Amino acid sequence: MITVHVDTPGGRYPIHIGPGRLDHLADSLPADTTSVALITNTTVAPLYAARVERALARTGKPVVRVELPDGEVHKDWQTLNQIFDALLQNGIDRQAVLVALGGGVIGDMSGFAAASYMRGVRFLQVPTTLLAQVDSSVGGKTAINHPLGKNMIGAFHQPVAVEIDTDALATLPDRELSAGLAETIKYGMIADADFFDWCEASVDALLRRDQEAIITAVRRSCEIKARVVSQDERESGVRAILNFGHTFGHAIEAGLGYGEWLHGEAVGCGMVQAAELSARVLGLPRADADRVRALVDAIGCPVRAPDFGLRRWLDLMRVDKKTRGGELRFVLLPAMGRAEIHTVPEGVLADVLEGTVARESS
Amino acid sequence: MITVHVDTPGGRYPIHIGPGRLDHLADSLPADTTSVALITNTTVAPLYAARVERALARTGKPVVRVELPDGEVHKDWQTLNQIFDALLQNGIDRQAVLVALGGGVIGDMSGFAAASYMRGVRFLQVPTTLLAQVDSSVGGKTAINHPLGKNMIGAFHQPVAVEIDTDALATLPDRELSAGLAETIKYGMIADADFFDWCEASVDALLRRDQEAIITAVRRSCEIKARVVSQDERESGVRAILNFGHTFGHAIEAGLGYGEWLHGEAVGCGMVQAAELSARVLGLPRADADRVRALVDAIGCPVRAPDFGLRRWLDLMRVDKKTRGGELRFVLLPAMGRAEIHTVPEGVLADVLEGTVARESS
Repeated sequence: MITVHVDTPGGRYPIHIGPGRLDHLADSLPADTTSVALITNTTVAPLYAARVERALARTGKPVVRVELPDGEVHKDWQTLNQIFDALLQNGIDRQAVLVALGGGVIGDMSGFAAASYMRGVRFLQVPTTLLAQVDSSVGGKTAINHPLGKNMIGAFHQPVAVEIDTDALATLPDRELSAGLAETIKYGMIADADFFDWCEASVDALLRRDQEAIITAVRRSCEIKARVVSQDERESGVRAILNFGHTFGHAIEAGLGYGEWLHGEAVGCGMVQAAELSARVLGLPRADADRVRALVDAIGCPVRAPDFGLRRWLDLMRVDKKTRGGELRFVLLPAMGRAEIHTVPEGVLADVLEGTVARESS
Repeated sequence: MITVHVDTPGGRYPIHIGPGRLDHLADSLPADTTSVALITNTTVAPLYAARVERALARTGKPVVRVELPDGEVHKDWQTLNQIFDALLQNGIDRQAVLVALGGGVIGDMSGFAAASYMRGVRFLQVPTTLLAQVDSSVGGKTAINHPLGKNMIGAFHQPVAVEIDTDALATLPDRELSAGLAETIKYGMIADADFFDWCEASVDALLRRDQEAIITAVRRSCEIKARVVSQDERESGVRAILNFGHTFGHAIEAGLGYGEWLHGEAVGCGMVQAAELSARVLGLPRADADRVRALVDAIGCPVRAPDFGLRRWLDLMRVDKKTRGGELRFVLLPAMGRAEIHTVPEGVLADVLEGTVARESS
């Protein structure tokens, strides 16, 4: 087992990474826990819920299971309220711990439920998708979607621990593996050129889920994310670089309707667009922008964006949380392995959109 | 103008108390505010919204008004979502400030909206009811109700400032003045026996809204609340004493349906019950329990509780956030001006309920 530490004003906690962690969740349960609410979805429950319940039951604490529908389209208030209903109906008190067993949607919703149930209870992240393991389970960002914008309602609420069982990836559909790899290679682009090189060289091993390659990728991703989040928990500065590709990506998700493309797929495509924008605005070498496109393609994510038309693209992007006084701001790469935030002239942005969307005729 | 300071890990901010503060809200708006969302209700808006908008417009920042329906029954997700809809439709960004103009319901909902919109924006409390001025606007507790429990969904989120215009009480209905006085006299009971004496001696002045008496009452209440909250922002210890009378009071509100009795009325009655319980369990002198009852009666709040029957009373009280492992916990007075938290034998609790509910036949 590998341990990576996160240290923020909102909480200091370990990320445990390794095979078989699902059987050891009791290690991460605080001693004064009164009861546990296991929050999962109808896809993950048949695979892992009974096993996790056995592991948690060893503590002698009562365990209540809350099973939600699966998918980004359910990351809304109605589903969140199902959690609150179950917690209140079962008399779950302030000393309880919520356990989020599933992907990013379960983690984000369970985390926001934990942030706001009785004004805040503790929770444990147990991510079962690669995307959740390398990204959304670490750093305390929790949220639900609003019809007018993704992740618009939420909280910063750090978990008591993150338990990453790399064995759980064995049951992950290929498409979700690709989506998770998009967030993985992102860390190379924004913070570690050597890791980007390693990802390029390891694509085949990662796609065939080679245990050693996966553990290396998860570990390095968590290390970078933990470092950034520890510097800037509330995203008042450097943390925003983690959003590389996300301004485009969120627009794709909102424009197509949540769930049409997976979040990681939209981010993968968004990184191709953001790399193009970086080449135009900051002079990122053409060869590096091409490497970004090639690697996104190699991991199995789309590299051509939907053609919403310029007006709609701009409207969709303006909902971004980085927007300030109506001005769009982008995370861009001055060089491979470095990221900065910039505003961008609308003309250049229009050119890049023009050049990166899929044309009916092409 | 009087200033009282609150100093918590979640934020340090001033409470400004005095006549005419509504015209000076711009003083409390941070310099980097991009825009302002004025959140109020259909009762308060015709009285003060235009005046407040004029005061805010002096900063040159755009001001968007969000008008909600009035009343505790609307302190729910549907109404909260009206705030989110308006914020997103108007492109309100992360650097905006929400201004809560109204009573406790507006303050609690605006505060929770601020806590969770884009994972947290700033807000300014401008309480216009006595209850909100002496209690709910100070200390960063925000929440909405859930059908299964009051204030069950929320956050600790401190405002940037609290602006208390004591002139605003001129338009407050008598019943709401009484409800606010219930929370005011509470501070004497739990923390300052001299202030309790002063309240007894000043009932007439307070009820006729004598400016000097009101300012003294608001100031002393805010001082005590600020001190307690600064010691324990997250209610892990001493802050729970502010809930004196609230375990009974919340049960009354939930049992009758939210909005039937005002929150302060339910708390007033609950304090009479909690004082009785204090006499039985901790030996609070009978004379002091009688003084509590007499003062609650004098300020115009009910002193006999609804007769739900023992089972239902216990069920209603068990939803309380102080409950731990199924065990009910009460804030009790060992002496006037001091408060402690205790579990209570069910038999004694049953006796007190028996003795404090209104009987059909009586």
